[in-house]
Order: sequence, then C-alpha cells, then structure tokens
Amino acid sequence: MKTLFNLCVATMTLALTLPVQAQFAKPEDAVKYRKNSLFVMQQHWARVGAMATGRVPFDAKQAQDNMEVVSALAKLPWTAFGEGTDKGDTRAKPEIWKESAKFKEAADKFQAEVAKVNAAAKTGNLDNLKAAFGPAAATCKACHDNFRKD
Amino acid sequence: MKTLFNLCVATMTLALTLPVQAQFAKPEDAVKYRKNSLFVMQQHWARVGAMATGRVPFDAKQAQDNMEVVSALAKLPWTAFGEGTDKGDTRAKPEIWKESAKFKEAADKFQAEVAKVNAAAKTGNLDNLKAAFGPAAATCKACHDNFRKD
Repeated sequence: MKTLFNLCVATMTLALTLPVQAQFAKPEDAVKYRKNSLFVMQQHWARVGAMATGRVPFDAKQAQDNMEVVSALAKLPWTAFGEGTDKGDTRAKPEIWKESAKFKEAADKFQAEVAKVNAAAKTGNLDNLKAAFGPAAATCKACHDNFRKD
Repeated sequence: MKTLFNLCVATMTLALTLPVQAQFAKPEDAVKYRKNSLFVMQQHWARVGAMATGRVPFDAKQAQDNMEVVSALAKLPWTAFGEGTDKGDTRAKPEIWKESAKFKEAADKFQAEVAKVNAAAKTGNLDNLKAAFGPAAATCKACHDNFRKD
C-alpha cells in the first residue's frame, strides 16, 4: 500500500513537473529566467513603493502602469523552480523543493497581495495604495526570509 | 542659428532622457533591466516560435498565454537605453545613441509586429500565427544585426 502510494505521488509529481521542465531548454535557463523576471518586477515594484512610502510624489498613472507590469511579471518566476534547478548561480534554498507546498502557498499569497495592490492602484487613490502596499511587501520579505539564502 | 539649434536639440534630448534616467538608481540597473526583460521575453517568444515553425504541436492556449507575456514585456527594454548606459556589461552598439531615431523606429516596428502576432494568437488559428510570426521575428533579427554586437 505504501509502495503504491509512493508510486502515485511520484507519478503525480512527474506529471506536475514535466510541463514546467519542458519550458526551459536547460536548468540554467530556468534559474536565469526566474532571477531575471524577479529583477524586472522588483524595479517596477520599487517605483510603486517609492510612491506608497512617500519618497517620491504620487502619480496615479505611473502607479497604475507600474502595477500592470508587476502583475504581469508576478505570475512568471514560479514556473522556473522545477526539479534540477536547485544548483548553479542561485540563492534558492533547498526548502523550496523540500517544502514545496509551503513555497507554493507563499507564491500564491504574494500574487494575491499583488492583485490587491493592482486594484488599489487602479482607484487612483494614494491611501488605497498605501494600505495595500504594506501587506504585499511583507509577502516579498517572508518568501525571501524563508526561501532565499542571504 | 546653429548654436540655437544645437541648444534646442540638447534641451529636447534632456527632456526626453531625464524621466527614463530617473527610473533607474544607477546605469548598471538599466543595463541589467533591459537584458533581463529581453531574456524573459525571448523565452516566451521561443515557445511561440516552436509552434509557429512546427517544432512542437500547436496549443492555442499556450500560444495565447505566451504572447500575452511577450506583449507585456515588449514595451519594457526601450526605456533602459538612456544616456550613460552604453558602458559596462552590454553588447549594445554605439549606434543606439548615435542613430537614436533609427533605433526607436526599430523598437516601434518590433512592438507593432508583436501586437500582430498577439492578435493572431488570439484567433486560435495556427495559420494566422505562422503568417504573423515571420515578419515579427525579422524585426528581432534586424535590430540585433544593427544594434547589437556579436
């Protein structure tokens, strides 16, 4: 029974993993892809953050435009943590693969919070943006603390 | 008269350049940003290309989803070629800044062709995708040939 269960888990894992794997020609591409998409996202996120925290004047259009890019990019990195991508030029912790359900939950939580900031930005109201920004930024930090080496 | 003209050009260039400059904390960030956004875009573009050229079976949803990402990313790199970003870890040719109108035209042409491929992908028809893909891919090549070092 235990063997059958393990076989089922292995098969399911393979089924879940294969399409992701197949998207990248080699593991290094996946590592580069997730780092690159996170960097580009962070650049736009920082522009929103500068407004949300009052370091630069609020510009509703800029906030909206930047959040559109963040929203598009927020979906991407998570497809690039397939099997075999835990090596090389990466600060990814082994926990990503050892506690994959927890990692997925963190990634989902982040995307849900980004969607809230995006909705807030669309209102054109700085107070809404400020209210949504903090909890979203906290999900960035939580994931970095738990899943990224210093 | 010539001096006045030069002053006007300089002022206009400054006006066009300043907001772009202000988006990046330092020139290296701009270089990294454009390379990173181009790499992520290329990964998705390659998935569409594999379908458009018959190397992998056509999947209408995959084509649409990938083209959505390409479309979002196609707008980004061009903001990161501001003054002072011609140095460092880059293959950007001096022509980008010397012939900036020609470079902008090439970037605009690329984005226009990407929009056509995106529209074609939305039809869910492989023949439409094939027809739009070639001209778009040609704009990638043209820009690389003219503005990127080997």
